Amino acid sequence: MREAMARAVVGDEQSDSDPTTRALCERVAALLGQEDGVFMPSGTMCNLVAILVQTRAGDEIIVDDQSHIYNTEAAGSAAIGGVSVAALRTPAGIYTPEQFEAAIRTPARTAPRSALVSVEQTTSFSGGSVWDLADMRRIRDIAHARGLKAHIDGARLLNAVVATGIPAAEYAKGFDSVWLDLSKGLGCPVGAVLCGTKDFVVEAWRWKYRLGGAMRQSGVIAAAGLYALDHHIEQLAADNANLRLIHEAVRDLPGLAFDPTAGQSNILVFSVEGLGVTAAAFAERCLAEDVRVRAIGAFQIRVTTHLDVDRPGAERAAEVIRAVAQGFAERR
Amino acid sequence: MREAMARAVVGDEQSDSDPTTRALCERVAALLGQEDGVFMPSGTMCNLVAILVQTRAGDEIIVDDQSHIYNTEAAGSAAIGGVSVAALRTPAGIYTPEQFEAAIRTPARTAPRSALVSVEQTTSFSGGSVWDLADMRRIRDIAHARGLKAHIDGARLLNAVVATGIPAAEYAKGFDSVWLDLSKGLGCPVGAVLCGTKDFVVEAWRWKYRLGGAMRQSGVIAAAGLYALDHHIEQLAADNANLRLIHEAVRDLPGLAFDPTAGQSNILVFSVEGLGVTAAAFAERCLAEDVRVRAIGAFQIRVTTHLDVDRPGAERAAEVIRAVAQGFAERR
Amino acid sequence: MREAMARAVVGDEQSDSDPTTRALCERVAALLGQEDGVFMPSGTMCNLVAILVQTRAGDEIIVDDQSHIYNTEAAGSAAIGGVSVAALRTPAGIYTPEQFEAAIRTPARTAPRSALVSVEQTTSFSGGSVWDLADMRRIRDIAHARGLKAHIDGARLLNAVVATGIPAAEYAKGFDSVWLDLSKGLGCPVGAVLCGTKDFVVEAWRWKYRLGGAMRQSGVIAAAGLYALDHHIEQLAADNANLRLIHEAVRDLPGLAFDPTAGQSNILVFSVEGLGVTAAAFAERCLAEDVRVRAIGAFQIRVTTHLDVDRPGAERAAEVIRAVAQGFAERR
Amino acid sequence: MREAMARAVVGDEQSDSDPTTRALCERVAALLGQEDGVFMPSGTMCNLVAILVQTRAGDEIIVDDQSHIYNTEAAGSAAIGGVSVAALRTPAGIYTPEQFEAAIRTPARTAPRSALVSVEQTTSFSGGSVWDLADMRRIRDIAHARGLKAHIDGARLLNAVVATGIPAAEYAKGFDSVWLDLSKGLGCPVGAVLCGTKDFVVEAWRWKYRLGGAMRQSGVIAAAGLYALDHHIEQLAADNANLRLIHEAVRDLPGLAFDPTAGQSNILVFSVEGLGVTAAAFAERCLAEDVRVRAIGAFQIRVTTHLDVDRPGAERAAEVIRAVAQGFAERR
Repeated sequence: MREAMARAVVGDEQSDSDPTTRALCERVAALLGQEDGVFMPSGTMCNLVAILVQTRAGDEIIVDDQSHIYNTEAAGSAAIGGVSVAALRTPAGIYTPEQFEAAIRTPARTAPRSALVSVEQTTSFSGGSVWDLADMRRIRDIAHARGLKAHIDGARLLNAVVATGIPAAEYAKGFDSVWLDLSKGLGCPVGAVLCGTKDFVVEAWRWKYRLGGAMRQSGVIAAAGLYALDHHIEQLAADNANLRLIHEAVRDLPGLAFDPTAGQSNILVFSVEGLGVTAAAFAERCLAEDVRVRAIGAFQIRVTTHLDVDRPGAERAAEVIRAVAQGFAERR
Repeated sequence: MREAMARAVVGDEQSDSDPTTRALCERVAALLGQEDGVFMPSGTMCNLVAILVQTRAGDEIIVDDQSHIYNTEAAGSAAIGGVSVAALRTPAGIYTPEQFEAAIRTPARTAPRSALVSVEQTTSFSGGSVWDLADMRRIRDIAHARGLKAHIDGARLLNAVVATGIPAAEYAKGFDSVWLDLSKGLGCPVGAVLCGTKDFVVEAWRWKYRLGGAMRQSGVIAAAGLYALDHHIEQLAADNANLRLIHEAVRDLPGLAFDPTAGQSNILVFSVEGLGVTAAAFAERCLAEDVRVRAIGAFQIRVTTHLDVDRPGAERAAEVIRAVAQGFAERR
Repeated sequence: MREAMARAVVGDEQSDSDPTTRALCERVAALLGQEDGVFMPSGTMCNLVAILVQTRAGDEIIVDDQSHIYNTEAAGSAAIGGVSVAALRTPAGIYTPEQFEAAIRTPARTAPRSALVSVEQTTSFSGGSVWDLADMRRIRDIAHARGLKAHIDGARLLNAVVATGIPAAEYAKGFDSVWLDLSKGLGCPVGAVLCGTKDFVVEAWRWKYRLGGAMRQSGVIAAAGLYALDHHIEQLAADNANLRLIHEAVRDLPGLAFDPTAGQSNILVFSVEGLGVTAAAFAERCLAEDVRVRAIGAFQIRVTTHLDVDRPGAERAAEVIRAVAQGFAERR
Repeated sequence: MREAMARAVVGDEQSDSDPTTRALCERVAALLGQEDGVFMPSGTMCNLVAILVQTRAGDEIIVDDQSHIYNTEAAGSAAIGGVSVAALRTPAGIYTPEQFEAAIRTPARTAPRSALVSVEQTTSFSGGSVWDLADMRRIRDIAHARGLKAHIDGARLLNAVVATGIPAAEYAKGFDSVWLDLSKGLGCPVGAVLCGTKDFVVEAWRWKYRLGGAMRQSGVIAAAGLYALDHHIEQLAADNANLRLIHEAVRDLPGLAFDPTAGQSNILVFSVEGLGVTAAAFAERCLAEDVRVRAIGAFQIRVTTHLDVDRPGAERAAEVIRAVAQGFAERR
């Protein structure tokens, strides 16, 4: 990948004349079945710009209560777009079409205007759960029937694709905006691509520029994205398989609690509350054995598999997590 | 009241030289035990300005999910202040101190910054429930310990005062901002007064001016406020008593469902879902008998007593609501 | 006027059911030849809402460098609407159609989008100068040809009407938004009316509500507006005549400097720099003789005639200003 | 440079654990005599974040009327920060300390709050003019005495350094925020570094993250910055010399007009209005001879020298521009 970057043919992205960046955008747009795409320095900017283009101040967007937009974008949609967030209460980041429909505000001078709904495929904080295609389509159709735009936060969309065999374009079909992250499972150093109609991309470019996201010879980093689409997709399947291995090794341990949808892709979230120990303490003990897991909140642990975790690494991680959990269980 | 308005001594409010407006602000500040106050054209502007002064873009405020701020201010805090809203799930607009504390975000570069908590005394959409003084104080103290400001939406604070006998200044003690509405129970045509420290009021005035809320000879309408504080407070007790009368007349009717805290002040909310009828249909039937109740959402009915509803009026309203409910029940 | 207010028939403005407020809005809309109007607590909110409805974040509005919007609205268009201001350099608040056209930005992803132009009729800080009707129409037509909206800040539009005999509807013809202040020359305690198309007013209402400008029984103050339109318009002509009297009495005094367009309506601005004295000192000396003039900046004095200044008052003001100027001149 | 990028040691920038990015930030902070720095995807984000951290909604910033902030950042300061811009009228992008001081608003509830002043060293649209160090310091001191922050848009600060021999840290001394562009004269593909105090950088990071500017293994592109600081600074001196060569070759041509400060660094701006030809036509003719110059507005031509223009290239550009100008002159 570094070699591909070093050889990249570049131009000035700000005037749309960087050929490698153009090639990447077209490639991702085709993958997602969208008309056009724009390269972004981060997935956060993809979500933000999709909101900025498709709403205006005083609007409200509807997301799940565990979403990246609601929790981990520093309130950018409100701070920059003047847009309020209605966060639907969910067990694992997945709401029902009915929940969504009930949250759409009746139009009134006094009410926020419901303007956009977002689906995060796969979910992150709640453990890589995969949204059902039929549910996504019902949400999309309800949105359009009620005058809302429908957006996919596709940070890990390709993990869903390899988990289910459903093509990315099938998931994205009919949605108004959707993006892929290049820097997570795909292993690129930097970047994401936001897609939609040609008109959407024109407006997205305005906001990208205004936010300071326009770069110069971005082809150097876009080259990594092209390389990853050629070489790293099968890795995502391996990530999912490695995660499944870990999940199976620990799912029955006493004191750990899992959501029923756990283990569907490359993220595993479980609670250690039943061990009478904090997530921070659990994570620290794993780290002492060179296995890095993340504490989320007081009692949740998140495990992620990716490019740098191979099969033996996954086996070792499973062993360590087992041992740590059993160690805590014995002490109770 | 109209006579008091016609006789009001006035000046230019924009230069703080309207004596009647000044007198009203001092009177309300004293009533609430706050340093100073500013006259506003509406309660919505009081909430908005309290938020604007005490937060900055990217912050998050914590409110209940039935609050005026979250539902009925057209997303002003996001649209104008760039502030996101965390809406706590509640049965009747009242959350617990524990719920509040759990919702405060751990400080992080990626997270919204929890900046202000609001208590709406009494609740509106959920039926005039009265917040417990001890709970309010715990919320206030948790807020301050964690670096948040604490705000009271006091649209109906005086209804709580007459219901419990606890002085307004006791409720407001130690809160950073609090306001009273003059145009609801107090019966003035226009206005509200927002109070806090002297520094707070200086900044509140800047936002009031910027929003276009600065008026000229506002003494004409402020005079009504002074009149109401002299003559209409006992009316609030009558409103509460009239509401109680209605509540008692209908609480046991089959098909109607009430929250356990219902009937504490001058608002009554109940569900007609058990009658197999929509709120809209129920309200329409009452209106045909000249009793105006409000449909909220699909199945909730809200009844409010105020200045223009006397004892016989309340008795008649109770009768009509009973009759309508029984009519629908018989048809099932 | 107070009597008219005391007798006003009222309803709840927030639900458009205050008949006096409706009557006032329709009356002003007819006077301005516009489809509909909305009552506002201040002229500042009229300008702000006209901008909010007709622009979006990242747009730029074009105004004169002495305008109320640029100088005296606390940066509300930027703070609330995210809109930048291009302030055209003018001698007395009046720019040329050519200046305006040259300031429209060439459309580009990197540039602010020129979205709205505002004409302040008559000018305020620069001395009540009256815009030429033909120039206003060229500005309006250039705006529309280039895709901008055209707005009139009509705080003192009726002063221009009585000065020139041109009807308000002629000035307002074809503009997208225009408003009248009721609290300045017209002598009402509070309020202004913002007009435009029916669709514009629907959106203006949303912003009025969101800003906290929606009132309750606003008919009490709207009644004053109706009274003023019946009884105070001729007063504006008297104000202009009184101002002319003062202007003629002082225009040739050594040490005072006037703009060539000075004295056209009810505001007179002149410089006292030639007297070697600050405006503050000059104003203080006048006040010692009970004549209140306003210091603007270091050396500018502003004199305004209105309802409370009758003919003898104007004569006395002229005498005092003469005497003060001569006093300072002698001391040099 | 590409090789340095391919070899870069990286980590996750979002958790401050990318060592190459950290090394670059420390290096630039030291060069500018500031406490700390943050890597940004673009210079536009540096300006925007410096404004966002050091102002709040309703503030006003003071810049020159030809500045990048006012003209070429898509109104980001208003759109995102709610901040208005006062653009000082200048002949060539350089205002005087007196002009700046006169533009600071007198504090008032009704006025925008003057909060930050920006100096663009060197100027861009007006031709690479170099700000005088003493003037910059007077502006900085006036700003601080009046409660404003002082900012340097240092996109081309190093061009000033090589033109005058004054160290970058001398220019930046005492300013509250300052940045360097890596992608212009320094020839990096992407990036800029914004510096200030440690506290400033903490807040800058929050905004960078919120805007979507936080990247992952940004070391790949930061490595280019380190390489450029080692190897490309002397190139800037060559750029200035090449520009001077072009300037001297064309400065006396009839029909071309230059600002007295023209030719000080690596940008040359001149007017072709005297040739009776548009800038677009002039640029097109040069391009036909493979010399790319940029039309700015109707009659201004901008010539820039950089890494990819060597001495013979500069000589050839000078010849072509001469020939094109003479060709147009003969046709008149």
